[in-house]
Amino acid sequence: MTGWIAIAGLGPGAPSLVTPDVTDTLTLATDVIGYIPYVARVAPRDGLTLHPSDNRVELDRALHALQLASRGARVVVVSSGDPGVFAMASAVFEAVEKHPEFIDTDIRVLPGITAMLAAAAAAGAPLGHDFCAINLSDNLKPWAHVENRLRMAARGDFAMAFYNPRSKSRPHQFEQTLDILREECGPNRLITFARAVSTPQQMLNTVTLGEATPDMADMRTVVLVGNSATRRLGRYVYTPRSAS
Amino acid sequence: MTGWIAIAGLGPGAPSLVTPDVTDTLTLATDVIGYIPYVARVAPRDGLTLHPSDNRVELDRALHALQLASRGARVVVVSSGDPGVFAMASAVFEAVEKHPEFIDTDIRVLPGITAMLAAAAAAGAPLGHDFCAINLSDNLKPWAHVENRLRMAARGDFAMAFYNPRSKSRPHQFEQTLDILREECGPNRLITFARAVSTPQQMLNTVTLGEATPDMADMRTVVLVGNSATRRLGRYVYTPRSAS
Repeated sequence: MTGWIAIAGLGPGAPSLVTPDVTDTLTLATDVIGYIPYVARVAPRDGLTLHPSDNRVELDRALHALQLASRGARVVVVSSGDPGVFAMASAVFEAVEKHPEFIDTDIRVLPGITAMLAAAAAAGAPLGHDFCAINLSDNLKPWAHVENRLRMAARGDFAMAFYNPRSKSRPHQFEQTLDILREECGPNRLITFARAVSTPQQMLNTVTLGEATPDMADMRTVVLVGNSATRRLGRYVYTPRSAS
Repeated sequence: MTGWIAIAGLGPGAPSLVTPDVTDTLTLATDVIGYIPYVARVAPRDGLTLHPSDNRVELDRALHALQLASRGARVVVVSSGDPGVFAMASAVFEAVEKHPEFIDTDIRVLPGITAMLAAAAAAGAPLGHDFCAINLSDNLKPWAHVENRLRMAARGDFAMAFYNPRSKSRPHQFEQTLDILREECGPNRLITFARAVSTPQQMLNTVTLGEATPDMADMRTVVLVGNSATRRLGRYVYTPRSAS
């Protein structure tokens, strides 16, 4: 039996946003590996071993997947959203780079609906023009990089989407983010806080940067910032396709 | 009968990448509106009228959808990829803004797998860290905006994804794009040309900026540019999660 790894995106939460490609691949799996709440979204069945693990052990999890596949297992590594956007795909390739004996592993990445695009769809079309995706967590990069990217994105008049905007261990950074954005974009720029998108707990809140406060975001929130032309239209927020 | 509009993303091409949300919504539709090749991806059936239209008539198409919905039709406006990424969602909201009599229309946006994320998955994980999405077409914005965004994205060390990189009517612009990128990022930066992703015609080609030539892209190509840490690993290209 030849093992393989599929790194699969489960989408933002709703079962109706999981692609058939991912659903079908899960039916072939012998093992599912991932962060506890994502593995909990996979239905148990005979012949399938679930391996839920804690947050922040991405490399251990990736190595575990490589080891299982080398013994013939058909392993699905699950991420929420899209596995290539601030999720497990890069972690698996990092593990291969550290453990080159696994270089010939059959690895496929199965795309998914990433949180920012589900959030944008729920709000209207705030990312309808050029945009950036930025992970605000500084677990893996210096805060100075984040700050530079925020300023470059603002000066390019990009719309922006932020992942991991706020955590208990870094309470001041999202406040700094808002300060930088107000400085670069002014107080009238629109910002949308989208929490638990596509789930029954979904909450959307659009305000101006002048009105935004750090407590509007938590770790289940994706944050969307408009470009200079982004506007409200009834209950929607959208960015026109043409220049402002 | 109350009409509605769903602006739906059909994904990059493979039927297995169409979400159940989109598939189920199409079964409820009375009318499907969109660019000819996208409408051709919807199976005909009794009670469903297909309205294929030519390229570059997005606002006419959007107005048609609003008019049909106001008469009680259940209209699905189809885009490839994700409708909120350089596709029909913004066009529909622009049409509502121009024709405010339609402001109370029930409009939903159904997200899809956008081309850059399908391309990234096929290549490995080149967008595994902060990245930008840029539409290189200047149909709706001055070229100077595109050039500024390229430079800001490069100076922020973002990975980048380009939509609509090249057309017959603008043959020199992608050449200029490559020149700007070489100037800002140097000749060794990796660039991936991904054509017709997820279809039987899929072709992936990763080279350095020094090796890249304009003819490597056409209008079916999405182009991915790495950040300063993006690397090859066997047959994969990936961007690590940590800073370079």
